[in-house]
Amino acid sequence: MAERQAVELEKSYLLLNHGPVTLVSAAHDGRRNVMAAAWVMPLDFSPPKVAVVIDGRTFTRALIEASGAFVLNIPCRAMAEQVLAVGSCSGREVDKFAAFALGASAEAVTPAPLIDGCIAWLACKVIPEAHNQQRYDLFIAEVVGAWADPRVFAAGRWRFPSDDLRTLHYLAGGNFLVSGDAFAAGGQ
Amino acid sequence: MAERQAVELEKSYLLLNHGPVTLVSAAHDGRRNVMAAAWVMPLDFSPPKVAVVIDGRTFTRALIEASGAFVLNIPCRAMAEQVLAVGSCSGREVDKFAAFALGASAEAVTPAPLIDGCIAWLACKVIPEAHNQQRYDLFIAEVVGAWADPRVFAAGRWRFPSDDLRTLHYLAGGNFLVSGDAFAAGGQ
Repeated sequence: MAERQAVELEKSYLLLNHGPVTLVSAAHDGRRNVMAAAWVMPLDFSPPKVAVVIDGRTFTRALIEASGAFVLNIPCRAMAEQVLAVGSCSGREVDKFAAFALGASAEAVTPAPLIDGCIAWLACKVIPEAHNQQRYDLFIAEVVGAWADPRVFAAGRWRFPSDDLRTLHYLAGGNFLVSGDAFAAGGQ
Repeated sequence: MAERQAVELEKSYLLLNHGPVTLVSAAHDGRRNVMAAAWVMPLDFSPPKVAVVIDGRTFTRALIEASGAFVLNIPCRAMAEQVLAVGSCSGREVDKFAAFALGASAEAVTPAPLIDGCIAWLACKVIPEAHNQQRYDLFIAEVVGAWADPRVFAAGRWRFPSDDLRTLHYLAGGNFLVSGDAFAAGGQ
């Protein structure tokens, strides 16, 4: 498994700023699940917050509401098949970890599992907002822990040493874009 | 100016799904402004909704609160310098349209201007949610019109015929990624 290095909480928004697709994982009372979510964004810098849309019918949603916590895992190009697979079935019917050969590990700050093979992780604690959750399936959460694979994100910067490590950006119908090349604007 | 073709409202979420940076434009009572926003995401399919973070100190925010409307303009690689520029000053002090040579045009469905040179546009009508706006700078809006440059988005699909037309994904400090190549997962 790749190395996992802590990211300063104040810099954790940088993990989501460019719009990658995420895997949302959660666990409660001995059960766990993971789903795909493209509708996620940073919401604040410090304390860092995120906003994410979690459909009310999903098993992950039930685990999040019970535990008050989730992890946003950022997968890479090498995991595209698994991202599509976990987004195409329900954890009520399938143990996605077994079915799609997903490993996971733990961090003390969250009950939710961190998915192996991802390149960044944000441990999130739900800020209860019943109206948003019920009306819009919208969850707001504080980021209480963040980590990245230092090959890909270090010192506040993304870099992609190989195509397999690029972030995924979901289009539709099983189609993704990968993150492209970086450049500096403003004459830098 | 490039062609602007209507996008079905039910497909308008596809314009934001992969996480591009946006320019948020608004107008009220003879004044207009534009700012950059990376913290934006789809919120629902039908009727389509979006969520976007609009800092309370911005002039654009004042125009949005007064008019109840904004446009999410999606710029392309060729506009990176302008995106950085409009994100680096306030419309209270500078006429950004004049200062950065930004053209704009109108659509009947919105009071907000559509920025020339962008490759997609979503006209949004604010759904008032005072708590979200005040506590989180978070605006929820319904998409009431959508258009795209058909060279780049047509029949529900993005394609990038040249590097200049790729979408921008903001990192930090004046650095962007461009959208990379598309691929199909799931053995398609």
